[in-house]
Amino acid sequence: MKGDDDVNTAMKDEEADGSGEKLLGFNSTEEQPSGPGGQDSMWGNEKYESVPLDVKGIDEDNSKGTRDSLYPGSALWKTRQLDERPKDSKLWPYFQDGQRRIDYVLTYHVQKPPSTRKQKSHSCCLRRKRTSSPSREDPELAAQEQRLDYHEDDQRLRREEFEENLCEMGLEMEKDEGNKIPGVGFLKIHAPWEVLCREAEFMKLKMPTIKKYEVSPGSGIAEKVNMFMQKVTAPLQPKVVDSQMENEKHLSYPFSREKQHLFDLSDRNSFFDSKTRSSIGDIDCVHAEPNDRKILYEEWASYSIFYKYQPIGLIRYYPDAECTARGRKYFGEKVGLYFAWLGVYTQMLIPAAVVGVIVFLYGCATVDDNIPSMEICDERNNITMCPMCDRACSYWKLVTACGTARASHLFDNAATVFFAIFMALWATMFMEHWKRRQMRLNYIWDMTGFEDSESHPRAEYEFRVMKKSLKKEQSPKTGNVKLTCTDRMPAYMTIIVMMIFLIFVTLAIVFGVVLYRVSIMTALHMSSTPTFRSNIRATVKTTGAVINLIIIIIMDEVYGAIARWLTIMEVPKTDKSFEERLIFKTFILKFANAFTPIVYLAFFRGRLIGRPGKYIYVMGSYRMEECAHAGCLMELCIQLCITMLGKQLIQNNLFEIGIPKLKKLLRQRKIDKKHQEELNKTLHRHEKDHFLGPFVGLNPEYMEMIIQFGMVTLFVASFPLAPLFALLNNIIEIRLDAKKFVTELRRPIAVRAKDIGIWYTLLRGLSKVAVIVNAFVISFTSDFIPRLVYQYMYSPDGTLHGFVNHTLSYFNVSQFQPGTEPLEPLHLGYRVDVCRYKDYRDPPWSDTPYEFSREFWAILAARFAFVIVFQNVVMLMSDFVDWLIPDIPKDISVQIHKERNLIVELFMKEEQGKKYRNTMSDPSPQPLRSRPSSQA
Amino acid sequence: MKGDDDVNTAMKDEEADGSGEKLLGFNSTEEQPSGPGGQDSMWGNEKYESVPLDVKGIDEDNSKGTRDSLYPGSALWKTRQLDERPKDSKLWPYFQDGQRRIDYVLTYHVQKPPSTRKQKSHSCCLRRKRTSSPSREDPELAAQEQRLDYHEDDQRLRREEFEENLCEMGLEMEKDEGNKIPGVGFLKIHAPWEVLCREAEFMKLKMPTIKKYEVSPGSGIAEKVNMFMQKVTAPLQPKVVDSQMENEKHLSYPFSREKQHLFDLSDRNSFFDSKTRSSIGDIDCVHAEPNDRKILYEEWASYSIFYKYQPIGLIRYYPDAECTARGRKYFGEKVGLYFAWLGVYTQMLIPAAVVGVIVFLYGCATVDDNIPSMEICDERNNITMCPMCDRACSYWKLVTACGTARASHLFDNAATVFFAIFMALWATMFMEHWKRRQMRLNYIWDMTGFEDSESHPRAEYEFRVMKKSLKKEQSPKTGNVKLTCTDRMPAYMTIIVMMIFLIFVTLAIVFGVVLYRVSIMTALHMSSTPTFRSNIRATVKTTGAVINLIIIIIMDEVYGAIARWLTIMEVPKTDKSFEERLIFKTFILKFANAFTPIVYLAFFRGRLIGRPGKYIYVMGSYRMEECAHAGCLMELCIQLCITMLGKQLIQNNLFEIGIPKLKKLLRQRKIDKKHQEELNKTLHRHEKDHFLGPFVGLNPEYMEMIIQFGMVTLFVASFPLAPLFALLNNIIEIRLDAKKFVTELRRPIAVRAKDIGIWYTLLRGLSKVAVIVNAFVISFTSDFIPRLVYQYMYSPDGTLHGFVNHTLSYFNVSQFQPGTEPLEPLHLGYRVDVCRYKDYRDPPWSDTPYEFSREFWAILAARFAFVIVFQNVVMLMSDFVDWLIPDIPKDISVQIHKERNLIVELFMKEEQGKKYRNTMSDPSPQPLRSRPSSQA
Repeated sequence: MKGDDDVNTAMKDEEADGSGEKLLGFNSTEEQPSGPGGQDSMWGNEKYESVPLDVKGIDEDNSKGTRDSLYPGSALWKTRQLDERPKDSKLWPYFQDGQRRIDYVLTYHVQKPPSTRKQKSHSCCLRRKRTSSPSREDPELAAQEQRLDYHEDDQRLRREEFEENLCEMGLEMEKDEGNKIPGVGFLKIHAPWEVLCREAEFMKLKMPTIKKYEVSPGSGIAEKVNMFMQKVTAPLQPKVVDSQMENEKHLSYPFSREKQHLFDLSDRNSFFDSKTRSSIGDIDCVHAEPNDRKILYEEWASYSIFYKYQPIGLIRYYPDAECTARGRKYFGEKVGLYFAWLGVYTQMLIPAAVVGVIVFLYGCATVDDNIPSMEICDERNNITMCPMCDRACSYWKLVTACGTARASHLFDNAATVFFAIFMALWATMFMEHWKRRQMRLNYIWDMTGFEDSESHPRAEYEFRVMKKSLKKEQSPKTGNVKLTCTDRMPAYMTIIVMMIFLIFVTLAIVFGVVLYRVSIMTALHMSSTPTFRSNIRATVKTTGAVINLIIIIIMDEVYGAIARWLTIMEVPKTDKSFEERLIFKTFILKFANAFTPIVYLAFFRGRLIGRPGKYIYVMGSYRMEECAHAGCLMELCIQLCITMLGKQLIQNNLFEIGIPKLKKLLRQRKIDKKHQEELNKTLHRHEKDHFLGPFVGLNPEYMEMIIQFGMVTLFVASFPLAPLFALLNNIIEIRLDAKKFVTELRRPIAVRAKDIGIWYTLLRGLSKVAVIVNAFVISFTSDFIPRLVYQYMYSPDGTLHGFVNHTLSYFNVSQFQPGTEPLEPLHLGYRVDVCRYKDYRDPPWSDTPYEFSREFWAILAARFAFVIVFQNVVMLMSDFVDWLIPDIPKDISVQIHKERNLIVELFMKEEQGKKYRNTMSDPSPQPLRSRPSSQA
Repeated sequence: MKGDDDVNTAMKDEEADGSGEKLLGFNSTEEQPSGPGGQDSMWGNEKYESVPLDVKGIDEDNSKGTRDSLYPGSALWKTRQLDERPKDSKLWPYFQDGQRRIDYVLTYHVQKPPSTRKQKSHSCCLRRKRTSSPSREDPELAAQEQRLDYHEDDQRLRREEFEENLCEMGLEMEKDEGNKIPGVGFLKIHAPWEVLCREAEFMKLKMPTIKKYEVSPGSGIAEKVNMFMQKVTAPLQPKVVDSQMENEKHLSYPFSREKQHLFDLSDRNSFFDSKTRSSIGDIDCVHAEPNDRKILYEEWASYSIFYKYQPIGLIRYYPDAECTARGRKYFGEKVGLYFAWLGVYTQMLIPAAVVGVIVFLYGCATVDDNIPSMEICDERNNITMCPMCDRACSYWKLVTACGTARASHLFDNAATVFFAIFMALWATMFMEHWKRRQMRLNYIWDMTGFEDSESHPRAEYEFRVMKKSLKKEQSPKTGNVKLTCTDRMPAYMTIIVMMIFLIFVTLAIVFGVVLYRVSIMTALHMSSTPTFRSNIRATVKTTGAVINLIIIIIMDEVYGAIARWLTIMEVPKTDKSFEERLIFKTFILKFANAFTPIVYLAFFRGRLIGRPGKYIYVMGSYRMEECAHAGCLMELCIQLCITMLGKQLIQNNLFEIGIPKLKKLLRQRKIDKKHQEELNKTLHRHEKDHFLGPFVGLNPEYMEMIIQFGMVTLFVASFPLAPLFALLNNIIEIRLDAKKFVTELRRPIAVRAKDIGIWYTLLRGLSKVAVIVNAFVISFTSDFIPRLVYQYMYSPDGTLHGFVNHTLSYFNVSQFQPGTEPLEPLHLGYRVDVCRYKDYRDPPWSDTPYEFSREFWAILAARFAFVIVFQNVVMLMSDFVDWLIPDIPKDISVQIHKERNLIVELFMKEEQGKKYRNTMSDPSPQPLRSRPSSQA
């Protein structure tokens, strides 16, 4: 019973276009797995070698109890769509008989390639024979196998057990071992009709019935607007034929063998070929257009059409010319959803970018009317500032900060607040828009009602459970053993300690960069070379930001690997939980990595400096960094700009293009260069695909985008151009990813998915955090609140005139701590008695010198009040927008309702039809009660 | 086709224990509807008479196109469970043949009771005959009917059309018109087996299969804890037999006629009687225990068992002795969920009440150690306060506020902050706990996967659409006409204007009460009677609170009626949308009504008073109210206490017990008193039930509870005893509602429901708002922050000594506005130069007299900072708790997974069984492909 269950699950995973390039377990020590590993669980390019060697020992004792889902040393992928139909019919993705199509290919490594061995193909093995002779068809082979070492033998045994179980489920197989590519075996699998049927029923797969219905064009005005929009956006639509969907739709109903009459039975073969099969397995339609991939290539994976919508339907499946009703899935729903999401995100970035640019331009336009920067730049004000560092620096004139002040205004003006509110609402709109899009796709793809069935436990988990049950000396087959919290406690503790440690590492790195800046600054100040001194600020800022960037990129990779290692240590039960835990850890680490320097800049820099005469020192004698006069916003802005641009450029170019190409080259080098061209001509499609890059899952793509989303929303108040940068990056990113998927990678198994899973939760979390972060940026990092308070509480004439003076406190230079006075007090050419510094403190001549002044507290109160108001107003507005926009688009909900009614109607008709025929053809005739007439 | 569809929907509603006491449309002008209206849509006890008279005219033109769901002048309810089995078999809920059970009864009023007419019963009418003779069985009757007035005739015609449609659906009927109760007709409906089957299949109703499985007892420790808990709570469990569920569970699967073999077919009759039927319709099991209702009465609807858990399973259905597998539904899932929710809420109130009492006791225990109140009560401090009102009042000594200060401490101490945080987390825990409970109930009740099918449009909506299409002179049958935004604009505008107006009315009422208090206060101050003057504060406070309470209770009813009227005007499409819109409006109005006075007290009172010498006046010469010295918290507390207690006592006693009893009396008075006892003996059960109160839906119950939840969470920082009051009320409320449901009301139709719908959203919203409200109460209403700031910033010795002095500013009495000085300046016996008032302002002798001082701004900043920290920390903690507690209890998710596997296993076995039998009994034999063996 257990076996049944397991095989069943395994079956489902495959047929259900189920689990993606599911790795069915490896045991690769000398062998290199030819496939990259599960799409769900794999991350990055690491090899998936987590089942340790001693599995072997257990397998021997317990060969029947082994999870049948372990197919040793194997990888699974789908046959890639041919882009050109080869002349040789042998190269077609068919079994040797030319009849049965290859639905899946499993590959495995054979250590000692039996080059002399002939191609062996068997379509179904029989149970019980295995134990007597491992390969009954070929006695010669059996003899040869005895010569293989123990390990290879064990692998083969387990493979055969696995194959047998597949057989038992009704799948048909053909083997092709070490034929043309030495050391690689292929197991081609064909899913016959009845298996497809059965699994489709178990999965309650929604299938289109014979009944078509017209999609109502909607009510008057809405329809006209829609038509107009369609006309306007027509040039933006990719040139693919999927407009058929718009007017007519097949009523779909969960497939059931008893209700076959609902589905088009006229041509049984073509029905399943074109419909069920394409939804369950992935096959190449006999009469398919030869250039399907070409369409994708031209209408999707090309930079020249960057302005067009993506053909999302196509990415999921091809409509094909002759198997008209439905096409084949190309990448499946999961990949389709990623690109749809990326598309929606990019599309939504357009208004954000436009508004951001307008806000920036507003800043540019008003820079000359900005009273504070005018006051700073006015030579007549002649304000003497206190020195920026001890001893080496001297007094300086505020007018020298003129440039920075003017630049600051570009990002710190009244429009910024508006933009922050706009972006918070934008994030909500984006989430809502995506929910609706997802719902629409679910409906179009017949995924409504699809329930993600829990996948079976991972091999590693099973292995741990087995080890545990062995230790306990219980029967290993009780099945009641599971990993409890106690078992996992060491792993959990390690994870917590490790995560905290890594966060501290991140903080330490930031602190290190700060120290670097402080010390370099001091050193440069000390240096006597005048050119150095003049460019001090710019040099330090730039090198600091670049160092930060490099560290971020390096640590990104390190953290990714550590998160992976920690998750493996945790031994999650299922692939889904593995993926979620991995994503969660990676997200926390990468996020902390990317944002700690920015958070430091935004909220801590320049706040913990003390005051003249009482500075705060770190590491002995280094004074903490100060901000430029116009606040830290400018530096935050530079940091954000460099991080975003640098990260995107480097990661896109180096990691997404460069490294995969390098790997491909390395893979191909293994094959003799000479034979390569020759091979290319004679190789089967699946053999060619062997040399493509492995599909490593969508997680790195999502992660990259989510960090970018963080940059766009979290600190948008300080950098209105962030959406523009993101937009430009994403336009390239879409086509880059598309190219990668179409040409560079092995085609992943189509995976059903209803939503983008944990990523949605993370996005939601980010957009919530963004509200509070922006509130703090506006009220604490920018000078918005002080300006406002000055204008309405202190300004004599209600303008900002005098604001600069108001923000500067007085310091009596005689009160410098001994040894910190400037070495050149007469640097400016006159004696300074009182210098100014940016803070709200009482002057030296008040009763409470250098205490925080009344203005300080009033402004602080205003800052906090602003945070409360901003946070709650924006949250309320977000919730309102959320509530206002229905999650299910109106037309879709109407259509769903209509479909439901049509189904009931269909059944009622059928019902009445049955009544007339009555006992005729009813398989289990039900005595209809004769209706009693009047009783009285 | 349209007709089919409509009837179909109507059918569903009934059979699906669908729509509750669904009102199938009234046309009652002279006639009083005997039933109260739809449970879903009815609210309060108003009659449901919204289809206007001129429906008639349309019906004439369009008698076939009329919605078949209109059953004129009728109400629908279920036969109440007999509590005693009558000796006379005729009194049983069976048709005249004694075979077919009555599943539903429809009643309607006959204007001119044909008392001479014999009881007429026909089980199925035939189409087409109606037009020639309306009642073919009885020509005498037909003649008599011609004498009935036009209206009655029209009604009868429409009823008959409706009956015909029911017939067409396969339902069987028996009529019983004006037999024993004059003027009332009964239409008894029986749902035969095949109809039940069909509808069960359409609805994908999950039915228990033959396959039972053992519910695994879980892992070691958890199970032991569970066992222990069961033992401990054993005396709290109601004495009902439903422990069978615990160990074994029937595997359930959506019912399908093709898969009948999965369900127990051995005794087909009893299978459907005990299983399908009980889930679809509501029947009385033949061999039922006679005292089912008695169990409910004794083990649920009794005050003496207030400490016990509710038998939620029983409320939903009865397990019965002989139809063992499943019982009948008593109130169905929707009512079951309400009581389950109420139970969870009450249970969760226990820890809240306990902690609340502890916090209160902590306040009591520390009242003597409280430095600020000690300082106030210390005669030696001799602080002279400024007068409380102009002219009439004089200076007073702070020591006279001693009592209030001590009382304040009970509710305003350090523990309050802890309690507010605790309650915010408590609210989250409660929501989580309820989600889990709901999930568990869904699983036990086989509701997982149940989808609420959209119900058909309301009669009023259809009528409006019809009117619209007639106006447009389109064919009224196109069906494409619907109400657009334009049609609804007037209604929407009215609603918005009306809602805003009503909110303003609420504000005006509060302001009115404030004015009352201010003027009475002034008047009493002016009065020369010394007893008056001494009790001024107490008198004004108490009368104010009582007036508030009375206004709240009266306006509650008014707002309820207005909300209903507005919703009817809106003409929502479906009952569900009607209910949601009604609830939403009622919630806003009732919530504003209940909380505006409290919000005023908490946040506005005592803040807008100005300062001595510059008071703010309203209505000419009334100074705004001040708070007592120790803040407004005490008064807020009194208001909350009176509102909660008064509202609950009055509403429970008067509205929930008194008025229904009165109505019942009135209903029974219609029948001759003499005949009544006689009738009671001979009446059928359904005829007796006619005199019970109508079931008006659960919304008033929910609304009451949600307002209470608001009281408990929103201002809990000011009144830690609120949970205790709520707990005491709810313990009574549960049993009160239970009694009402069991004995007072007509038994509602069992309605399927998966969740508590919009109420959950409202609860969530409230618990979110509660966080911010409590943050503000703590930081602004209580003295928590000023105390903290004083202690850490200003106190010379780090204690609260000197705090009272610190909070009081100085006022030079020579600066009173002319005419506002006290008339008796020497009231205290000495000349006053400088009086004190509670505020943070600079003293008269500073540079900026009477300006807000530095302390004011510092404390304000601290207050705001506290709000931010509190809000975000609590929100974060809530989210964390939310994330920590899985929505689906572990054991349930394990069991669901197990069930899914078992189902697949079952099918696989069946599959293999089929293969052996192969072409034997397969109804639509499918040629299994012969498996090709080795190909090479």
